[in-house]
Amino acid sequence: EMAKLTQLLDNEAFRAYATYATIVLLKMMLMSLITAYFRVTRKAFVNPEDAASLGKGESAKKYLRTDQDVERVRRGHLNDLENIVPFLGIGLLYALSGPDLSTALMHFRIFAGARILHTFAYLIPLPQPSRGLSWAIGYAVTVSMAYKVLKTAWYL
Amino acid sequence: EMAKLTQLLDNEAFRAYATYATIVLLKMMLMSLITAYFRVTRKAFVNPEDAASLGKGESAKKYLRTDQDVERVRRGHLNDLENIVPFLGIGLLYALSGPDLSTALMHFRIFAGARILHTFAYLIPLPQPSRGLSWAIGYAVTVSMAYKVLKTAWYL
Amino acid sequence: EMAKLTQLLDNEAFRAYATYATIVLLKMMLMSLITAYFRVTRKAFVNPEDAASLGKGESAKKYLRTDQDVERVRRGHLNDLENIVPFLGIGLLYALSGPDLSTALMHFRIFAGARILHTFAYLIPLPQPSRGLSWAIGYAVTVSMAYKVLKTAWYL
Repeated sequence: EMAKLTQLLDNEAFRAYATYATIVLLKMMLMSLITAYFRVTRKAFVNPEDAASLGKGESAKKYLRTDQDVERVRRGHLNDLENIVPFLGIGLLYALSGPDLSTALMHFRIFAGARILHTFAYLIPLPQPSRGLSWAIGYAVTVSMAYKVLKTAWYL
Repeated sequence: EMAKLTQLLDNEAFRAYATYATIVLLKMMLMSLITAYFRVTRKAFVNPEDAASLGKGESAKKYLRTDQDVERVRRGHLNDLENIVPFLGIGLLYALSGPDLSTALMHFRIFAGARILHTFAYLIPLPQPSRGLSWAIGYAVTVSMAYKVLKTAWYL
Repeated sequence: EMAKLTQLLDNEAFRAYATYATIVLLKMMLMSLITAYFRVTRKAFVNPEDAASLGKGESAKKYLRTDQDVERVRRGHLNDLENIVPFLGIGLLYALSGPDLSTALMHFRIFAGARILHTFAYLIPLPQPSRGLSWAIGYAVTVSMAYKVLKTAWYL
């Protein structure tokens, strides 16, 4: 049954989904590293046990603080979760709904590009409407895939 | 192999999963729009570049504030993430575990109904235990599906 | 087609994925119950309608407050979301990419173990680097699975 199972990855639209889903998830995971980087360089921690390495008792307490750069990365990370989770679920079902390969590729490429742009727009930050627009494009692509899924699978 | 691939969507329990998963994900995505709506109408932003359109320098700073309605929608959104992510993963595996169609439909319908109720209970807000109960029903449905998945797939 | 569909769960690597994915999702869901437990015992609520059962008007307002234990559980929950969502998506694709059964089991077991350890490290809390290390191990396992997925499925 191994051959049957891996046939999913013989399908080009599914392979494209696998590739782009993995890329956007790795991009989202990168946000954890960027948060950690800013926490260490800005010396801004939230857990006492994390600040403990920088000093003892009262002297460590001053590192328990919020930092604007850290908070900005965390907002970007949460926005990724809010938008990449729908892409993961709807995109998987879309890839299984028998889309045109070229149409599927267009959806996946635009979504991934929009989310990468969104990250740069958030972290640099770029003036609006850069972030708003890149967010809206990823959102619209997900809604378009959802429409195809519902049209193909509809069973209430 | 396209025919083999799309056979997943020939299965009625899987089609029901695809339909309900897409519906709850679209409902979750709606929270982003509601948040944006309240941020704009309440003039309550968190990023300086977002408030910049409302004024320059000091006059824009007064719009960098938290608003109770915005925060309420954001809590509803996070609660969706915490509960819809388990449904997505466990529900997919459940749909692949060969459930009775009518049992599967019952699980999916109750989950989707409970999460939609939860959103109304959170945003209006309705007095407790409306929100608590709708949360608990969705939670129990997910645990019930997890039990079926573990019974069918168990391989540690 | 039911037979074809459930063939996914005939594959041992896929069954292992189903088992471990369900376990880590149930573990994540447990965080909601722990949060609720601390909110009730610490009398620390965020929604006025939740505090209403403890008193009326002004007397209920004093229970609208943040509590360090509640916040700690919530950070653990969010960290789960940030790390278990990538495992869900990448792990599913990895299980479909035809991995060695023993290699796949090793990945899933280490990930699940690391995330359970992470929860204990966060909630007790254990001194660092316990939490940092368990986080990093789960992260590395996910990156390793992502590498296999991209090598097998690559289609840009």
